[in-house]
Amino acid sequence: MVRRDEVRNGEKTVTMPETPDAGVVFIGRIHSPWTDRLTCPRLGRMDGPICRIEIFEPWVDALKGIDEYERLEVLYWLHQSRRDLILQSPKNDGIARGAFSLRSPVRPNPIGTQNVKLVRIEGPNVFVQSLDCLDGTPLLDLKPDRDLFTPIAPRQTGDDETRNAASGDER
Amino acid sequence: MVRRDEVRNGEKTVTMPETPDAGVVFIGRIHSPWTDRLTCPRLGRMDGPICRIEIFEPWVDALKGIDEYERLEVLYWLHQSRRDLILQSPKNDGIARGAFSLRSPVRPNPIGTQNVKLVRIEGPNVFVQSLDCLDGTPLLDLKPDRDLFTPIAPRQTGDDETRNAASGDER
Repeated sequence: MVRRDEVRNGEKTVTMPETPDAGVVFIGRIHSPWTDRLTCPRLGRMDGPICRIEIFEPWVDALKGIDEYERLEVLYWLHQSRRDLILQSPKNDGIARGAFSLRSPVRPNPIGTQNVKLVRIEGPNVFVQSLDCLDGTPLLDLKPDRDLFTPIAPRQTGDDETRNAASGDER
Repeated sequence: MVRRDEVRNGEKTVTMPETPDAGVVFIGRIHSPWTDRLTCPRLGRMDGPICRIEIFEPWVDALKGIDEYERLEVLYWLHQSRRDLILQSPKNDGIARGAFSLRSPVRPNPIGTQNVKLVRIEGPNVFVQSLDCLDGTPLLDLKPDRDLFTPIAPRQTGDDETRNAASGDER
C-alpha cells in the first residue's frame, strides 16, 4: 500500500528549508479517475483512461501548435506528497532507498513527469492517455515529447560539442 | 540566435501572477561547459561533454541506489529565462508558436527535463552526459529513467485500468 504520511522503518527525514528558492504557478488542472492515492496507478499506461488537462487563462494561447505532436510530456505538482523523506521503503520491508533512485511522488520538489498520448484538443482542454496522477493535480507544464521534437531555433555552437576524452573535459 | 530578453515580431506576453502557488528548493547545481545562452546546445547529446551534478546537503543521502540505473531523468530550473512569453518565434521570422508546443527554456514554469547517461558517482557529485543547460543551473530533481524503472511499491487497482471506450470514461 502506498503511504499516507507515515514514516516507515528504515526511512529518513530531513528538515526542509523554511523559504523556497523559486516559485511555480499552477497553469491548469488535471482531471483523472483517481481520487485517492491508494488506488492511483503506480505508472500510467498508453491504453489507460482518457484524462483531461484543463489549461487556465492566461495560458491557453500557449497551446498553439501542440496538436502537431502525437505524444507530449506533462509536468505536474504532486500536491499531496510530503517532501522531507530522503530514504524511503516502498515495500515497507525495512529496506530503504534514496528518493532520487525512485519515481515515488515523495521528493524534495514533488514534480511528476509523464509521457502521454495526445487524443484531442477542445478549446482549453487537452485530452490524453497514460497519466497516472490524482484528480485535481495542478499542472506545471506541457512540452512536445523529447523524441518527436526538432529544435526550430537556429543552430548554436554547443550543438556540435562532444566529449573530448583526451582533454578530460569534466566540469 | 536564441533570445536574450527581447520580444519579437508576432510574439505575445502575458502578465504573470504576482504570487506563486508553490515553492521549489534548489537541491544542487549543474556544472557544464556553457556559460552563455548563445552557445548552449539546443538539445543534449549522449556523446556530449561530461557534466557534474552537485547535490547539496541535506539531500545527498537521497542518491542511495541511483547507481543501479544507466540513465537518469534530470529536472532543473532555467534560471535565466523569462516566463511570460506564451507565443514565441524561435526563428524570429514572424511565425509564432505556443510555448507548450516548444521545448524552449522560456515557459511559465521554466523547468527543463533531460534524459542523461550516468557516467559515475563520487560522493555528492553525479557525472553525466547529455545535458544541455548553462553552467550554474539550479537542480530540482533526479529520477531513474522512466523506461528503466519498475515500481517497487505493491500493486494498486489503478495499475490495471484501461480505457473503456463503451462507457465513455472521459473526465
